[in-house]
Amino acid sequence: MKKYVFGVDVGGTTVKLGLFDVEGNVLDKWEIPTRTQENGTLILPDVAESIREKMKQMDRESIIGVGIGAPGPIDGEGVVHRAVNLGWGTFSIKETLEDLLNMPVMAGNDANVAALGEMWMGGGQGCKDLVVVTLGTGVGGGIIINGKILTGATGAAGEIGHIHVQDGEEDTCGCGNHGCLEQYSSATGITRLANKLLKSTKKDSVLRNGEVSAKAVFDAVKEKDELAMQVAEQFGEYLGNALSSIAAVVNPEAFVIGGGVSKAGEILLDYIRP
Amino acid sequence: MKKYVFGVDVGGTTVKLGLFDVEGNVLDKWEIPTRTQENGTLILPDVAESIREKMKQMDRESIIGVGIGAPGPIDGEGVVHRAVNLGWGTFSIKETLEDLLNMPVMAGNDANVAALGEMWMGGGQGCKDLVVVTLGTGVGGGIIINGKILTGATGAAGEIGHIHVQDGEEDTCGCGNHGCLEQYSSATGITRLANKLLKSTKKDSVLRNGEVSAKAVFDAVKEKDELAMQVAEQFGEYLGNALSSIAAVVNPEAFVIGGGVSKAGEILLDYIRP
Repeated sequence: MKKYVFGVDVGGTTVKLGLFDVEGNVLDKWEIPTRTQENGTLILPDVAESIREKMKQMDRESIIGVGIGAPGPIDGEGVVHRAVNLGWGTFSIKETLEDLLNMPVMAGNDANVAALGEMWMGGGQGCKDLVVVTLGTGVGGGIIINGKILTGATGAAGEIGHIHVQDGEEDTCGCGNHGCLEQYSSATGITRLANKLLKSTKKDSVLRNGEVSAKAVFDAVKEKDELAMQVAEQFGEYLGNALSSIAAVVNPEAFVIGGGVSKAGEILLDYIRP
Repeated sequence: MKKYVFGVDVGGTTVKLGLFDVEGNVLDKWEIPTRTQENGTLILPDVAESIREKMKQMDRESIIGVGIGAPGPIDGEGVVHRAVNLGWGTFSIKETLEDLLNMPVMAGNDANVAALGEMWMGGGQGCKDLVVVTLGTGVGGGIIINGKILTGATGAAGEIGHIHVQDGEEDTCGCGNHGCLEQYSSATGITRLANKLLKSTKKDSVLRNGEVSAKAVFDAVKEKDELAMQVAEQFGEYLGNALSSIAAVVNPEAFVIGGGVSKAGEILLDYIRP
């Protein structure tokens, strides 16, 4: 019998789900909204409900289990230690979802498991020393050293969204600090930079015509909108400096950039490169 | 017969040598100047001469070999790939010194081998995830992950002296970039910051009375010299930010701070801590 697994990527805005065969081929994918209210207690039941719905069309015996990634430090036992973007405190994602679905679950930090995926099937194929950067609601990082995830002493290695990149920042990061990379180079950060710039100048911009988002900013950059290009400059300066610092520390073979913001494509690199 | 090894630490200003037993006890230590002229070609012959001199009092058969560390990327074969502070290009330190001394030599990046030493006998005992920062003529870093040196894809992991910490720096770092940590937090960097501040203000300071050096700056800090304290603030701000970035990337159990500047003692921490 052919065997299948579900993959789940819990983001700050949407949960992305996929059905895979064990060779890593994507057979189906869909999304549900991430309900972060009530300290994120609705998220895993929503995930379980969505998977159960999909399983109605499948042979229960053909399903091996679920792999789930989420933003925050998650240790080798599948226990998350405070995920600020989801409202989560400390609890076992693995056990909670296993109880809800009655099947085996593996849980890890979203960027760490993304890094394993990129090494296996994605942009990092052939590399054993790899840094994967996820630009989504937050900024995550997954570091592969000699083919293995670098978890660090307390599971917080690769938390590159909280590299300090700017002194004197007045807005507070989700982590409580000020001037973290995530405040400038995540989707949320790009939106924040754009809104600040729109407020501080009267300059014309297509961004004044609709909802400001990271996607809107890079769409406007492609139309050579000057204000959007200024935002992209700031985004890329912070991210580029952070990546060069990471390179000085771990000396990877390659960086792979993923997450929702990466959908903007090649144009990102024009701003990230020195 | 008791066995002995020589340890050699090539710095930008002095070469530190030591005689050790195989349990790691220091039996003797001394220094010679580092002659960086003529592209550093005098350095290893000077080291060999100094070791030969010491060996005159010893039984040749009791000596196992030499371990040598130097600032710059040095691969697993003992080949250095450009050490800017010494004038060195690319050549095998291991083979060169073996030819000069006719005994086995192991060579590695100074901060990397220092990190192994700190884990074995020093400030990192009991730790398996450790970052050692050496504040000398330059700033070096040695990263231990799960008990092993992190060398990186091309042997340049832990080159934390070249983390970018300041935009708009006009002076050029030894590596050719601008705004590297080494330009602010090495002995040379501290001296540079002090000289700049002395020039830009008329403020009284004990630093105006003698030669400006990192040692003089921290001696003056201990006397509560205001100008020296300003220099220490800058030094610590840059270093503290860089260490927090490294913590976000590799999540170590501990940092160990070594190198000549660390002789200033506990007072350094007052400026490095947030």
